[in-house]
Amino acid sequence: MNPVFHRRRYNEDTRRRAQPQYWWFMPMGEGNNLVIVTGIPGVGKTTVITTAVDMVKKKHNETVIVLNFGTAMFEVASKKGLVKDRDEMRRLPTKTQRQIQKLAGKSIAQKARSARVIVDTHTLIQTGNGYLIGLPEWVVTALEPKTIVLVEAEPDKIAARRSEDPTRTRDSQDVGDIEVHQQMCRAAAVAGGTLTGATVRVIKNRQGQVEAAAADLYQTLME
Amino acid sequence: MNPVFHRRRYNEDTRRRAQPQYWWFMPMGEGNNLVIVTGIPGVGKTTVITTAVDMVKKKHNETVIVLNFGTAMFEVASKKGLVKDRDEMRRLPTKTQRQIQKLAGKSIAQKARSARVIVDTHTLIQTGNGYLIGLPEWVVTALEPKTIVLVEAEPDKIAARRSEDPTRTRDSQDVGDIEVHQQMCRAAAVAGGTLTGATVRVIKNRQGQVEAAAADLYQTLME
Amino acid sequence: MNPVFHRRRYNEDTRRRAQPQYWWFMPMGEGNNLVIVTGIPGVGKTTVITTAVDMVKKKHNETVIVLNFGTAMFEVASKKGLVKDRDEMRRLPTKTQRQIQKLAGKSIAQKARSARVIVDTHTLIQTGNGYLIGLPEWVVTALEPKTIVLVEAEPDKIAARRSEDPTRTRDSQDVGDIEVHQQMCRAAAVAGGTLTGATVRVIKNRQGQVEAAAADLYQTLME
Repeated sequence: MNPVFHRRRYNEDTRRRAQPQYWWFMPMGEGNNLVIVTGIPGVGKTTVITTAVDMVKKKHNETVIVLNFGTAMFEVASKKGLVKDRDEMRRLPTKTQRQIQKLAGKSIAQKARSARVIVDTHTLIQTGNGYLIGLPEWVVTALEPKTIVLVEAEPDKIAARRSEDPTRTRDSQDVGDIEVHQQMCRAAAVAGGTLTGATVRVIKNRQGQVEAAAADLYQTLME
Repeated sequence: MNPVFHRRRYNEDTRRRAQPQYWWFMPMGEGNNLVIVTGIPGVGKTTVITTAVDMVKKKHNETVIVLNFGTAMFEVASKKGLVKDRDEMRRLPTKTQRQIQKLAGKSIAQKARSARVIVDTHTLIQTGNGYLIGLPEWVVTALEPKTIVLVEAEPDKIAARRSEDPTRTRDSQDVGDIEVHQQMCRAAAVAGGTLTGATVRVIKNRQGQVEAAAADLYQTLME
Repeated sequence: MNPVFHRRRYNEDTRRRAQPQYWWFMPMGEGNNLVIVTGIPGVGKTTVITTAVDMVKKKHNETVIVLNFGTAMFEVASKKGLVKDRDEMRRLPTKTQRQIQKLAGKSIAQKARSARVIVDTHTLIQTGNGYLIGLPEWVVTALEPKTIVLVEAEPDKIAARRSEDPTRTRDSQDVGDIEVHQQMCRAAAVAGGTLTGATVRVIKNRQGQVEAAAADLYQTLME
């Protein structure tokens, strides 16, 4: 067994000790096995997810379903005969789009009753005109996640990774802006947790230690 | 045309490229054309708003309506015969006050269906007894903003501006407190975005660059 | 009278001046006299509460009721015959548990109509598997607090206090983690404020100045 699996922020004793004191906040065992995994571009989110999913496969021969929220929305809308292709999605009225988002959320939550599911998405998406909300109230409450994960990295490391990506502008490499973005993502995750009762977990993806970050996600998935 | 109009955090190519990937988060084109503009005292919010409104007038000969939420509340309450003057407002029962807030929000949202509207307000108002909530759930969901703007400035610049204002106490010039206040305002804006789906935009009002900040707000208004 | 009672972030003049401008955000005088007091382990929350409660007793001969949310939940559940001991609470279905949480919240809110009440709890509880939400939407809206207080201390002071506690692991003394935890607690308090309209107050518990912190809490209780 890989030694990183033993790495814990608090050791198991600490956790057990904490439980009697805070038992009334403890999320229940039943319900959805759904983890929302978020992280800003350049934190290495995809690698962390892939590695954690591999760990579950190797250790328990179980397949974690990794879903994209947009794909789930398109499936709902096309089944209802509302759209033929993705381009048409954007032309739907706001109300219809929100209904589809709710239905997609509920459909994913349904899947998570019989399998471990990761929704790979964003809390806040940076655009030239502000941050888009990745987990609005009607989406996060439909999903009923057990945990919202924030994959984070050091702002300067994120800037460095982005600078190696030729499709990214230099503007996206401002360390101060990256710091603010990560800070606001934390607030968004906490807002989502407040609305649903989901735990919020920050997973640090330290340079060269993706296995440790994946082990944290593995732990959250298997809990 | 002023060169500041060309200034963008991400260039247009970046934005276009981002759209297909995140199309399902994109706010729809229809609905309210309402932007909530917030900022703590000393960031220069009023100047940014005035300059942006002038830009819209000059470039498109269009008048942006700038509204104060308190005034809208008073209008609703006095029309209903509940109050004769503003002082009476504060003596209304909490439930009545909340109903008036909702009605004021809906009335502003209605106006924003046929005109560009700015609601000039606060996310969190600092008092000697804590932060008052400027955008509680029932207000922000009634307003249905397309964007919540946070006008920000460097904490030391805010402290300096406040020190020039003889009506302000020295306590209000603590740079650490200003930093915490701005940080909490970001969390409040993100909570508002989560409840409504509104985008959240941080606009930096850098020293001597109010035109650039106003150009950002102009862009958000015209989107 | 202790000089610390005169210590104010803004002086009274500032507050009075602020009121006409922001009258429409002012919380009303009626309703619940309930203050939620939160703070991460090591900030000295219990001492601040005890000292403030003593101040109220000494100056007004009034008893502030200090409640633990878990105890209130257990009372509701055992009265309903759902459980015999606390261990059984954790085995209740999630839906039942949430109903109990709501009922406990409403029962506390009821008490706060005729007495000053402090709910001693957490915004976010750190565990080895992420942060648990101490004030989810259905709890905070049932409680209807007038104020959510964040007792804070300098991260290095918290780390030092924790290092003196032999039951705490060294992991819990990472200053960076403590800083992030406090920052996320602020976001959680702001989310609670947004959902309820409660004011959010940061009370600094500075080294050797617990009386000043308690005076701030005293002020919030008596307001």
